[in-house]
Amino acid sequence: MTKVGDARRTSVLDRATHVASVEGLAGVSFGLLADHTSVPKSALQTLFRTKEELQLAIIKTAVEVFTRTVLMPAVEHPEGLPRLRAMMSAWVDDYLKEFEGGCIFAAGASELDGHPGPVRDALAEAVRAGEELTTREINLAIRLGELPPDTDAEQLTFELHAMVLQANHDRQLLGRDDALERARIAIERRLSPPIAPSA
Amino acid sequence: MTKVGDARRTSVLDRATHVASVEGLAGVSFGLLADHTSVPKSALQTLFRTKEELQLAIIKTAVEVFTRTVLMPAVEHPEGLPRLRAMMSAWVDDYLKEFEGGCIFAAGASELDGHPGPVRDALAEAVRAGEELTTREINLAIRLGELPPDTDAEQLTFELHAMVLQANHDRQLLGRDDALERARIAIERRLSPPIAPSA
Repeated sequence: MTKVGDARRTSVLDRATHVASVEGLAGVSFGLLADHTSVPKSALQTLFRTKEELQLAIIKTAVEVFTRTVLMPAVEHPEGLPRLRAMMSAWVDDYLKEFEGGCIFAAGASELDGHPGPVRDALAEAVRAGEELTTREINLAIRLGELPPDTDAEQLTFELHAMVLQANHDRQLLGRDDALERARIAIERRLSPPIAPSA
Repeated sequence: MTKVGDARRTSVLDRATHVASVEGLAGVSFGLLADHTSVPKSALQTLFRTKEELQLAIIKTAVEVFTRTVLMPAVEHPEGLPRLRAMMSAWVDDYLKEFEGGCIFAAGASELDGHPGPVRDALAEAVRAGEELTTREINLAIRLGELPPDTDAEQLTFELHAMVLQANHDRQLLGRDDALERARIAIERRLSPPIAPSA
């Protein structure tokens, strides 16, 4: 692809990702995207060929946004509990605010869970990768004595991610911006266990 | 409507609710529903008139399923913590298993949060009603001394519902049946605070 083609693709994908956050991944069509950009439908079809390729490209873009807003800032913090805290905090406060229609992975999960195929697979893989990052950091925090030795890392991952999912849900469906604060409080409580860590 | 019409409507709605759990509320159309029932599209249109009326009827059916599987068994338990526990347990173990495609409210939330209108309003109202029931029972448990007096009832509602939402998400997208057990563990932990209740 030419550099001009690349730039156009990037700009269209940026818009497409926002449209998907409002309309859902299943709801994004070339026609709808043409309405939201200055790019004619035929040119969009040349760029992405099929709706499936467009959906896969949107998921890739959302993963890049996650990397930029959550992972990159988190690696500035020491491994273990500080990095885990930074990650969860950026997830709630920065990542969730990136898209007007809320988290694309959450929306896509509900839409696509009943539809096996490459798009569902890509979505599930992105979600699993996010879980693995969280579990890895929890395990490091346990080894460093920052979390109790009997912590179930996968259980804690489930609970932390639950708060992010619920915050996104309440904010999008019920218009509750205080849901982000509720998620923050719940995450902080789970990461500050009553047993003081051995230093 | 005649009794025969009522029976047909109930039977079609039962099927429609299952189709909506897989395809999403936005994905349910008269054509798709005709494919899933022995009822021709024109008869379905006579029964429900518009897609919006069909969607509203599906939400009402899902609320009835919730009432039958969660609320009716819960009121057999004493008010306060026992009823709250029974409610959350039935929510995870019975309600979530009712539909092959998972919770309709969770799916609908993601699909419709960007689409203001009567269907979104009905969905949001059902979700709010569920929250109010949980918060009411938590407040009773606090008054009865079964939960610590400084418990933030709305915060606890947020956290309990987060576990149900995450269980549904992990089960549907990632095929993890152990997500139900994770939700159970998390809910039980939140309802068994370190401070012993005053008897």
